[in-house]
This record gives sequence, structure tokens and C-alpha cells, in this order.
Amino acid sequence: MTKQELLDCHQRIIPFVHNTAVLTSRSIDKEVNAQVFFKCENFQRAGAYKIRGAANAILQLSEEEKKRGVVTHSSGNFAQALSLAAQSLGVTAHIVMPNTAPEVKKAGVREYGGIIYECKPTVEARQSLADEIGVKTGATFVHPSNDNNVILGQGTAALELLEKQPDLDFIFCPVGGGGLIAGTALAAKYFADTCKVYGAEPYEVDDAYRSLVSDKIERNETTNTIADGLKTMLGDKNFPIIRALVSGIVRVTEDEIIAAMKLVWERMKIIIEPSSSVTVAAVLKQVKEQPEGFQNKKIGVIISGGNVDLSKLPF
Amino acid sequence: MTKQELLDCHQRIIPFVHNTAVLTSRSIDKEVNAQVFFKCENFQRAGAYKIRGAANAILQLSEEEKKRGVVTHSSGNFAQALSLAAQSLGVTAHIVMPNTAPEVKKAGVREYGGIIYECKPTVEARQSLADEIGVKTGATFVHPSNDNNVILGQGTAALELLEKQPDLDFIFCPVGGGGLIAGTALAAKYFADTCKVYGAEPYEVDDAYRSLVSDKIERNETTNTIADGLKTMLGDKNFPIIRALVSGIVRVTEDEIIAAMKLVWERMKIIIEPSSSVTVAAVLKQVKEQPEGFQNKKIGVIISGGNVDLSKLPF
Repeated sequence: MTKQELLDCHQRIIPFVHNTAVLTSRSIDKEVNAQVFFKCENFQRAGAYKIRGAANAILQLSEEEKKRGVVTHSSGNFAQALSLAAQSLGVTAHIVMPNTAPEVKKAGVREYGGIIYECKPTVEARQSLADEIGVKTGATFVHPSNDNNVILGQGTAALELLEKQPDLDFIFCPVGGGGLIAGTALAAKYFADTCKVYGAEPYEVDDAYRSLVSDKIERNETTNTIADGLKTMLGDKNFPIIRALVSGIVRVTEDEIIAAMKLVWERMKIIIEPSSSVTVAAVLKQVKEQPEGFQNKKIGVIISGGNVDLSKLPF
Repeated sequence: MTKQELLDCHQRIIPFVHNTAVLTSRSIDKEVNAQVFFKCENFQRAGAYKIRGAANAILQLSEEEKKRGVVTHSSGNFAQALSLAAQSLGVTAHIVMPNTAPEVKKAGVREYGGIIYECKPTVEARQSLADEIGVKTGATFVHPSNDNNVILGQGTAALELLEKQPDLDFIFCPVGGGGLIAGTALAAKYFADTCKVYGAEPYEVDDAYRSLVSDKIERNETTNTIADGLKTMLGDKNFPIIRALVSGIVRVTEDEIIAAMKLVWERMKIIIEPSSSVTVAAVLKQVKEQPEGFQNKKIGVIISGGNVDLSKLPF
């Protein structure tokens, strides 16, 4: 994926996405002794960055393919994003969701006209049902993270962040299926070549951390985390990019995730979901543990989304 | 208070306040069938618009007065704001707070170096303790809302909103002690003379509504509302301005306040406090009840603050 492809992708999706705000917080900067720039994809359409990749994937289909619709599986945000992008383009979206997905995310899919199919919360059950729907309807499968068009689309969040703040030393983003961090790493490579990209993961689902250690795609044995967006695994399209371009993955505990979520809600008055809180927690941890490398630096943070079930808050 | 005084006040306080973002929401616009512009004072320093008036009041003191400090009484946001403004200017702030004030607001005051004195949650108890402190310390009393310097300062939020969006048909803001709405009405008069200003109040503390009906300052018999910032009464400095310039006051129920709060949190991913939710609820109600007057109009909303005790949410 070239610099030009990333630029073309950005131009293509501009009518369908917000160029979201980049916020700062004096009190958080003071606390970490660094300058932190929050790219607020929680303000994005459908409440998360995912619409970027979803829109790009649909826009690359032929007219014939668009008529047959799209199908995906997702724990939540990509489900809403593909539904909304499809609705904007008059395309049918078939959405396979684990039966454990938060009600607020299912409601979002329905609101955007997506057709929901529930399955067991395993990687195999998701893929198998999505394949079945693809065969029946002729819909094109769009993987939430392991798809080059999706990776390019997700990279546009970092592209916009770097347009506003070109001198970042680091960008931190969460790692779930790997689409966002792969796209972010490409954007940093092409538009800020001294900017290092770090991933953030809960200890409870540290498959990406372990994948970088073992040099092959690892799976999660348990998914015991509040960060419901990060339970998925890397794929063969994004893993090579991550391996080549990502400087490291910082793991955080569930308590650190909740504390970071509370910090951002209280200090910045913005609603970020647990998967984004993982990233903030990783920044707090990294600056504390390696002050010589991170203090007084400019750190970008991709706030990936704000879809929270308000009836189930951890505080 | 003249147009020039308002402009001078704005220049004076610029180094001490944020020019906060004005946000919009496609989905809320669609829901109300109007264009709503949210002036996000929840992103303001100390989490509310109050620092505007607090900073202006302190900046107008003589050097001798500054040495002796300032004293106020406040249910929360003005307490934090005066503490922070005082701290920024090297001035001591004595803060009388009702013993029912949310813990998060007391913590804010302490963080900004304010000295807290607790009292019973009545208008008389507050004023009496503040007077006593003034006598003992020589500190200048700064009323949270019934003070011309404070009124001018609070008016700068609407001034900035109108700078960004000069063609507003309406501005809605909450009514507590009357400082914000008086300042907002002055800003609208001077910078958008066809823009009408409406207040928003809970039915449970509708003293301002009743004051406009009876043409004299009324009191609240009960203060049984979630909107803890709006329990105070109008004063002799702001009431004449409100009477002359405000088009009406819309009252809302507690259920409407909570529903509006949830709507904004879920759709806009920003944290607004109950007192601000009152204003959003008033807009929703007014557009629904008087569609001919309000639909397809441009409506500004002063989101007054975002200081919420996350351990005591109403949903």
C-alpha cells in the first residue's frame, strides 16, 4: 500500500466521514509531563473510526457488487460503521454479531439499517456464519480489520492527525484485529517518518504483543476484558505491516483501563469507550515507566470510539 | 453595561479562559429538525463557564484588594472557577460551600487551592458565613451571579458563540443565579440583535420563571432537582437585565432533564452536567411544542458545564 493509495483513499471517503477534532488537556499534559494530542474518533459518525475503512471498502466495489450487498462480522463498532456506510451508499449490509455484543451497539446497527445475525462469540462461529450469508446472498465479505481497503481507510485517522500536528514523536493506538494500527503505522511512515507507532492492549487479550514476540499470529485463550473491541486477533494482511512498522505494544491491566477512562471522562469531559481507554492507559504507563524516552515529547493518541452502554459503566 | 465593556472584558480574560469549541450533531439536528450549535463550556477550564466571570471580577480588583483575597459562596462550579482564577493570579480564595455540594466539586476547589468553609444549604447560611469571612480577612466578596463584572464575564461565552455563528435565531441557556443568562442576553443584544434569548429551568426550581410572571424576584420553596447548579435565586443586578432582554423561560421535568443528558452523552460523546441538560431538554421541548417558531431555525445552546460525579449518575 503506497502513500498515493492512502491519499486517494482519504479523498474518496471525505464525503462520508468527519475530520474529527484533535483535543488537548492541560491537566493531563501536566500529569504526564508531555504534550498529548487526542484524535477524537469518538466524535466520528457512528461513534468510532471504523466508518473510514468501511466506507473505503464499499466505495471500491463495482456497481454489480454493490447491488449484492456486503457482509461482515463484528463485535460492534465495525458493524455499525459498515451499516451506516452501506446505508449512505444504498447498499444492503448483513451483520454477524456475537450474542454477547453490547445492546447499544446492536441498536446502532439496527438504526443504520443493517440486518443482524447473531452467533456464538468465537472467531470460528463468526466467520462461518458470515461465509454462509455470503454464499446465500452474493454479498461481498468485508473483514473488519484484515482487508487492505479497510487498513487504508483506518489509516486516514492518523493521516488527519498528522496534518494538524505534523511533529508528533509518537502515536499510540489500540490493537484489536490490527486494521487501525496497521493503517496508523502506514500513515506515520509516509507522513512523519520519525514518528514511532505504539500499540496498546489489555493484558487479558495480549495476542498482538505475543504475536510480535513469537513472530507469528497468536490467539487469545481468554477474552476477559472490559475492552470489548479488542478481543479479536491479527490477520495475514495486517500482521506483516505491524511487524515491520510498529515499535512496540504496551499492555495494561483492567484497573488501569478503568482509571484511564475515568481520568478522561472527568478531565476532558468526553466519552471514550474502554478500548480507547486502553490506549490512554498505555500512554500513562509508558511515560511513567520510561520517562527519559517519553517525557516532554509530543504524543498522538487515537481515541478510537465512544460507544459505551451507559447502563453498564465500570464506576 | 455597554458593548465596549463587554468587549473589554473579553480581551481582559482571554489569557485565563479557553475559547471553547462549538459542536454540532447531525443526529440531534435531524431529531429536532433545526440546526443546533452547542457552545461547549464543559470543555472550559475547571469544567464550566464560571471562570469567565470569576477571572473578570478578580482582574478588576486593585493590587491592595488582590492581596487581601476574595470570598464567595457557591454550590460548586463558581467555587472551582474562583479558586482557579485566584490561583492563576496569586490571590487567596475563600470558598463557602453548602455541605450538600457534590464531592467532585469540593475536590476541584481543593485542587485549585481554594479554602473551603462548609455551611447549611440555604441562601442565608451561605451569605452569612461569607460575610463573616470577609470581615475577618478583608477579602472582597464576589457574588457568583449578582455582580456586574461576573455578568459581563459570563456573557463572553455567548459573545464567542456569536463570533463563530453570527446568524443564530435563538440562544438557550440555563438559569440559576441569573449571571449567565443576563450576560448572554447582553451579548445577543449587542452582537445579534434579532437573536432571541431563552432561559431553561427545572420545574422544581422555577424561581426565574415565576419572577418574570410576578415581576419581582421569587424564591424556591424546594430544591428537589438533579440540576444542582440551578438552585439559587436571581439578584437585583441581573434581574432587570433578564426582565428587559429575555424572551421567555422554558421549564422542564426531571425526567426530561435525564433523557436530554443521556441523549447528548450517547449521540455527541460529550459529558454535560444536569444543569446543561436542562437547557438541551428545553430546546427539545420548545421545538416540539412550537414547531412553527423553532423548526428549521439556528439555535445556540450554552452547554454550561461538565462537572458530574461519575459515581452518582442518573442512568
